[in-house]
Amino acid sequence: MSIEEKTEQNAQNTQVENPSINSGQAQKPKINRGPTLRIIPLGGMEEVGRNMTVFEYEKDIVILDMGIQFPEEDMPGIDYIIPSISYLKGKEKNIRAVIFSHGHLDHIGAAPLLLPKLGYPPVVGKDLTIAMIKKRMEDFEKGSAKKLDVIRINSVNDMFDFGKFRVGFFNVEHSVVDAIGVIINTPQGTVIHPGDWTMEKNPVNGQPLTYTHLANLPKPKILMLESLGAVNTSSSMVGEREMYANLEKLISEAKGKVIIGTFASQINRIGHLLEYAKQIGKKVALDGYSMKMNVEIAKELGYIKVGNETIIPANAIGKYPDDKVIIICTGAQGEGNAVLSRIVSGDHKFIKVRKNDTIIFSSSVIPGNERTIQRLKDSLYRKCDNVVHSDIMDVHASGHCNADSIKEMIKQVQPDYFLPVYANHYILKEAAKLALSMGFPEKNIFVLDNGSIIEFRNKEARLSNKKAETGYVFVDGLGIGDIGEVVLRDRQNLSQDGMFVIIVAIDRTTGKVKGSPDIISRGFIYLRESQDLLRETRKRVIGIVEKPNTNAVSRLNYIKDEIRNRIGEFLFMKTERRPMVLPVILEI
Amino acid sequence: MSIEEKTEQNAQNTQVENPSINSGQAQKPKINRGPTLRIIPLGGMEEVGRNMTVFEYEKDIVILDMGIQFPEEDMPGIDYIIPSISYLKGKEKNIRAVIFSHGHLDHIGAAPLLLPKLGYPPVVGKDLTIAMIKKRMEDFEKGSAKKLDVIRINSVNDMFDFGKFRVGFFNVEHSVVDAIGVIINTPQGTVIHPGDWTMEKNPVNGQPLTYTHLANLPKPKILMLESLGAVNTSSSMVGEREMYANLEKLISEAKGKVIIGTFASQINRIGHLLEYAKQIGKKVALDGYSMKMNVEIAKELGYIKVGNETIIPANAIGKYPDDKVIIICTGAQGEGNAVLSRIVSGDHKFIKVRKNDTIIFSSSVIPGNERTIQRLKDSLYRKCDNVVHSDIMDVHASGHCNADSIKEMIKQVQPDYFLPVYANHYILKEAAKLALSMGFPEKNIFVLDNGSIIEFRNKEARLSNKKAETGYVFVDGLGIGDIGEVVLRDRQNLSQDGMFVIIVAIDRTTGKVKGSPDIISRGFIYLRESQDLLRETRKRVIGIVEKPNTNAVSRLNYIKDEIRNRIGEFLFMKTERRPMVLPVILEI
Repeated sequence: MSIEEKTEQNAQNTQVENPSINSGQAQKPKINRGPTLRIIPLGGMEEVGRNMTVFEYEKDIVILDMGIQFPEEDMPGIDYIIPSISYLKGKEKNIRAVIFSHGHLDHIGAAPLLLPKLGYPPVVGKDLTIAMIKKRMEDFEKGSAKKLDVIRINSVNDMFDFGKFRVGFFNVEHSVVDAIGVIINTPQGTVIHPGDWTMEKNPVNGQPLTYTHLANLPKPKILMLESLGAVNTSSSMVGEREMYANLEKLISEAKGKVIIGTFASQINRIGHLLEYAKQIGKKVALDGYSMKMNVEIAKELGYIKVGNETIIPANAIGKYPDDKVIIICTGAQGEGNAVLSRIVSGDHKFIKVRKNDTIIFSSSVIPGNERTIQRLKDSLYRKCDNVVHSDIMDVHASGHCNADSIKEMIKQVQPDYFLPVYANHYILKEAAKLALSMGFPEKNIFVLDNGSIIEFRNKEARLSNKKAETGYVFVDGLGIGDIGEVVLRDRQNLSQDGMFVIIVAIDRTTGKVKGSPDIISRGFIYLRESQDLLRETRKRVIGIVEKPNTNAVSRLNYIKDEIRNRIGEFLFMKTERRPMVLPVILEI
Repeated sequence: MSIEEKTEQNAQNTQVENPSINSGQAQKPKINRGPTLRIIPLGGMEEVGRNMTVFEYEKDIVILDMGIQFPEEDMPGIDYIIPSISYLKGKEKNIRAVIFSHGHLDHIGAAPLLLPKLGYPPVVGKDLTIAMIKKRMEDFEKGSAKKLDVIRINSVNDMFDFGKFRVGFFNVEHSVVDAIGVIINTPQGTVIHPGDWTMEKNPVNGQPLTYTHLANLPKPKILMLESLGAVNTSSSMVGEREMYANLEKLISEAKGKVIIGTFASQINRIGHLLEYAKQIGKKVALDGYSMKMNVEIAKELGYIKVGNETIIPANAIGKYPDDKVIIICTGAQGEGNAVLSRIVSGDHKFIKVRKNDTIIFSSSVIPGNERTIQRLKDSLYRKCDNVVHSDIMDVHASGHCNADSIKEMIKQVQPDYFLPVYANHYILKEAAKLALSMGFPEKNIFVLDNGSIIEFRNKEARLSNKKAETGYVFVDGLGIGDIGEVVLRDRQNLSQDGMFVIIVAIDRTTGKVKGSPDIISRGFIYLRESQDLLRETRKRVIGIVEKPNTNAVSRLNYIKDEIRNRIGEFLFMKTERRPMVLPVILEI
């Protein structure tokens, strides 16, 4: 039911179209012989598998992550998007565990919606990740975190048996604490999946991580690799050490307040800055709901040890000289209601910007936010002489790898199969080219789509000619999946030229219009200045209604169609705009 | 009337807030003594002066450019934005000339709308620029190009007297042919304005341009400098020579068709590629309306000499082997209806993509188009193994400078005043910092806003405490400036949660609802699946209408308000969405 069947002919047609890399196209069907490991990236979005991945081996299922995606520009009003779980329908009892790689929303955000639908299977993760899931559950429904069946990862050496799956872990670096990579052992192959990762060449704490130990895992080794950085071919990445050196210099030399905008999940960075502030005797106010919550959680778990001798409430900053005050806050993406925007607009109750303050964007630009951030910068530069961002100085280190690191990872792990994931199709293709350039055999590289089913059997991989359903599931307010194409298209149309409702009362006996037609319009023109247009429209509506010779059977529908078409044309002729014309006819 | 008066106190307040660089803040008013040169950047957008700049000296006005800006995300349905010309109201007769620096739409696009309003003052430009203005006029209104009073710039050595202005020119490099810089001489100062510019270190044709001759112009020299690249601190820029070498290599080695997406105004690049195609015996099909038009114009003017032995119509490409065919087309920004999108969707009548074709994005990403271009790339990578863009190879050279070039320009021109323009405020501030870092005196740097009036008198500069009006003038269909805040906000609201119209017929005598209230909703929920919600809503509407004890005087308005508020609340409670609720009451 949840599988979309394809005929063999279709499968072959698509194959001919795309013979080079195994890219989401079906190969010729074989009969299912013996135990098979199936891997299915889910989610409706372009970034393949980023939100959720299903691993299936006979009657056992393990899931990696349950995240959300934020809507695109052409999805107005949508809050976020969750993966479709149609593939799991009827298989709920097979789900042995949901492993969470780390606590970012694109990996945990859908948990409150999907876990209940799947009967609360056990959830597996490190402390901070689990704490963030619980927080998200509680925000969604008070008391629901209690329903979680938690399996805690105490150490990277923990091993769990989930049905026929044997699951282990490895350390990775990413921009949130407690990120882990997973090793999924099955008789048909060993999946190695770091989740989101970067490769810090010169970490502040300790030695650079290596992955050579993964090369010893049982064959065939299947490397599923987040490859977002495949098109980042610049050899230099901003290192942690450099970033902290710059941040510390700015903080220590600041003549006024220091305001740092960063992601709320950057617990390590926030912790580091708190330690540094303590060391040089400055106070730190944290602001932004998620920022305060995350630091609270991190303190409870012991990840942040700095206490109230350094952390002060935002309303206390006035008690200290400006050059003793640091503010770490959310809103560096230019979100209208977040702290940084409120500071710049002057709406923040306690934090006012002065010319000699230092404002630091310790964050990257999330694609789609470019213009909003430009505007925020414009406003900040007007109020402050020292605004620092990545164009000016290296004050942010990315949580993602670059092309060089991808090659380095492949070299260290020595996989038998390479499945680039977590990025748009074109980036995955470029990741495949990186592997090819290292001599990786083309037949062992698979560029999947969401919904692709790749099967490992008898030490061989093949792409199934079936696909799991992966439509968008939109969340809007309380509605989950109730917004479809039609509603979205209406919203888009309404936003373009607005709407134009025409209400006509018709005398049932005479067929004449009673009174004058009512018109309600929004988003089309400024009505008060368009009286001529309205008058002419009303005249035409009356003309349409009172025109004789209309077939009596469908007369009302006919009039509605006529109003929709003719008034639509008339308004277009007069304005070259196409509002949505909605006729309402009342027979009296 | 067009000047917004400020009290002296206000002006001083803002000055205190921003003491460092002269950034759009007023200085203390002086009495107007003697002839004054006034410079006013116009346009409603963030990029200061990009669309239009006014130079005023006593009773003479010269204007530089009349461009359009494309709308931001929060301006749904708007076609484009033109500068407000309120400042020129009543001064039309003083306008001696409108000089056009080059033919891009952000510099000429508003000409068909603004020239008629200003009584068709003489327009000044080089051949291609004038041809592009005429084309735009004709597209707007057939026959209107004839009304232009054209003053042709035959050579960069031409000089024109426009009232008390003496105007000369200098060569600049930009991504369109016939771009020129202007020198505006007045007794109070010499303005040097290159318009958009880049500094090609190693041009394909001839020697690098230098600007040292401008250092000899009469003092005070006022450099108004496009500074978009001030935050581009990377020392390497893609050079023309490198770009052409890469493009030629791709073209000569291609085993299938070569499809090149670029900007239609890149006449030089298109011309170069045509010459190269001719040389190696390949045929070129040009596709896209603006692409074909521009090449037609360029051929007429003799800028492109390659003829029909090389240029073939798109419907003839089937007559040649794939490896002899090049297609140069529009749509590299992912525009839905442009050629490249139609090719990839399979909707193009003649051009189909094959796996072994080569598709080249010889273009930059215009901010705001990031995600659309990502989707286009995804689709292209699915159909073609050789997609090349700037992440992969240097196949585009920018028409804008970087930080190094800005410093180089200042060094060569040796201006007395530095006015960075054509970019967002924060970028202009960074350009000012570049000048400061070279020892440029802070008091001679002015960061203007649109509408700022800077005055040069007695060899001194001061920012006026008045500002020219610079509101957005939106063009939407046939409407120019008739869309205001209210309509835009309605469009935004409609796009978020749609609308919900409730039509109630009330019996005038009994005050009871006749029949069942009608409901029309779009963009809110899928109505067919929401029958319960509708039923409950109708019940509540009837309850509101028939509730006794309502004040008779304003009864209808009261009922409308009640429906709007209570049904709004009810719908929010049920859905957490806030559609626009519009009650219609008919008394019968």
